[in-house]
Amino acid sequence: MIKEITALELDPQAFIAEKTAEIKAAVGEGRAINALSGGVDSSTVTLLGHRALGERLRSVFVQNGIMRAGEAEQVVGFFRDLGVTVEVVDAREEFFAALKGLTDPEQKREAITQTFYKQVFGRLVRESGAMFLLQGTILTDVDETVAGIKRQHNVFEQLGIDPQAAFGYRILEPLIQLRKDGVRKVGEALGLPAELFRRIPFPGPALAARVIGEATPERIETVRLATQIVERHLAGHGTFQYLGILHEDRVTGMRDGRRDFGQQIEVRCWDSVDARNATPSRVPWEVLERLAQEIVDTVPGIVSVTYNIATKPPSTIEAV
Amino acid sequence: MIKEITALELDPQAFIAEKTAEIKAAVGEGRAINALSGGVDSSTVTLLGHRALGERLRSVFVQNGIMRAGEAEQVVGFFRDLGVTVEVVDAREEFFAALKGLTDPEQKREAITQTFYKQVFGRLVRESGAMFLLQGTILTDVDETVAGIKRQHNVFEQLGIDPQAAFGYRILEPLIQLRKDGVRKVGEALGLPAELFRRIPFPGPALAARVIGEATPERIETVRLATQIVERHLAGHGTFQYLGILHEDRVTGMRDGRRDFGQQIEVRCWDSVDARNATPSRVPWEVLERLAQEIVDTVPGIVSVTYNIATKPPSTIEAV
Repeated sequence: MIKEITALELDPQAFIAEKTAEIKAAVGEGRAINALSGGVDSSTVTLLGHRALGERLRSVFVQNGIMRAGEAEQVVGFFRDLGVTVEVVDAREEFFAALKGLTDPEQKREAITQTFYKQVFGRLVRESGAMFLLQGTILTDVDETVAGIKRQHNVFEQLGIDPQAAFGYRILEPLIQLRKDGVRKVGEALGLPAELFRRIPFPGPALAARVIGEATPERIETVRLATQIVERHLAGHGTFQYLGILHEDRVTGMRDGRRDFGQQIEVRCWDSVDARNATPSRVPWEVLERLAQEIVDTVPGIVSVTYNIATKPPSTIEAV
Repeated sequence: MIKEITALELDPQAFIAEKTAEIKAAVGEGRAINALSGGVDSSTVTLLGHRALGERLRSVFVQNGIMRAGEAEQVVGFFRDLGVTVEVVDAREEFFAALKGLTDPEQKREAITQTFYKQVFGRLVRESGAMFLLQGTILTDVDETVAGIKRQHNVFEQLGIDPQAAFGYRILEPLIQLRKDGVRKVGEALGLPAELFRRIPFPGPALAARVIGEATPERIETVRLATQIVERHLAGHGTFQYLGILHEDRVTGMRDGRRDFGQQIEVRCWDSVDARNATPSRVPWEVLERLAQEIVDTVPGIVSVTYNIATKPPSTIEAV
């Protein structure tokens, strides 16, 4: 049973001191590695790890082919400005090979998890001699996984999986007592720039979680284009999270007076404090209309755009 | 080439006089039959036909299993009040047998068309000795079918199909020069009650056009329940049309703290004058939120509800 630290009771400086000490004690004179996606959780754990281990922490951005447009460059640039070197590892072929033919959300998650932890990180750990993987698992990930709602890619021990036996390294999770709002406070205290510590959540399975059905390179590219538009139009409205989802269903549309049997992008934008409950944001109609128009005008194959109006629960924040 | 009569230039009384004369001339001393769905087009043509032929027109409501809740009773009641007897013909088994296994929208439409015109009406015509089927085809149906956007169930000659040869009877289409707004004016002039002549459009393939994928009795029942809720919440907002669509894609949801891999209802509500172009209505958020909540609370299997935000074109009013 993990003891929760609420954002209200959290003292960020005391938390940082305690966790850097714990990381130092665990890693000793050894080396650690960590994967940085650019999300709030992994960015915070990267800075925490560098404060504890300095150059003995190797930070890696895994280019898995399912990240958003320009994400690798952006994240590497952000951390360069903070004095942290982030290495980009190209693993696109491995991930798309693992995702090929899979349509079930849990199978897709599992394929990404295995490729990430076993293949890519297994290899990086062997190459670098690190014995520890530092990662930004938070309490909500554990809760949802244990409850069987959504298997989070970064939760193992609570499912009875021993990372040492399964992957050949230990996993350190210094943020596991926090929820999203607590992580933001710690990130801010560690000096993460506003763009990063206020960044909207992005799922572990990345854009593969944003396509219903098979995550082929083509379908990922479609949702990547839509995601760019959704994020540009919905940023700055003070909402908790916003996303675009490529559906598999085909709907009738028309182009140049002829039928175009096309696809649909669903847009979700949430108001929430900690992701456990969420309600659709009342985004101004003009914004939604411009957003939809730009998607149908510029994303190939898309003839329809919808906006989520159901709450979590019974919906979840992501669709996959 | 059909000569359009716009709503603006339409003189309803002169139009009614001219069309009743044409129907009388065509049918002579014979008998005709007509199918009444309860929509504006078929209701208007029913009254026009009765004005022309009196008891020599037999009006039938085909219970095809894909109509909305209580629709047969409602339509029969409306017309009873207008002095017109409408007979209900139960053809549910025939329609579901024809729809079994079909997922392509055009194949579904074709199955309904064939069952309706060939099987059910073929039999009714043979039994009754009628030589004519009177129906409410309008110009928009012809346009969309000829342009290849959406094959309307009631368009034949323009596709080179001779109903006499294909089905054994002739088809009369007195409203074919009008669009929806013109039909409403004629319906009003014929004395249709406000509830009927102001009724929102409902597609020929009925609820089969409101499910993406196979139209099984179970899936039709799901969209029927959702449709009742959508129509109750969206009536009275002055919009052109509103509808619910059952998707085939599955999305992750949660019930009682456990994952519920469920289905989605898409809601569309349109502002439009004549259905050729349409924009999503800016329905008050409270209404959309209550509507979504009632759907996820009461329609079995539904965990997510979306609202259309794309325009026609490139979308179409219906999804199938």
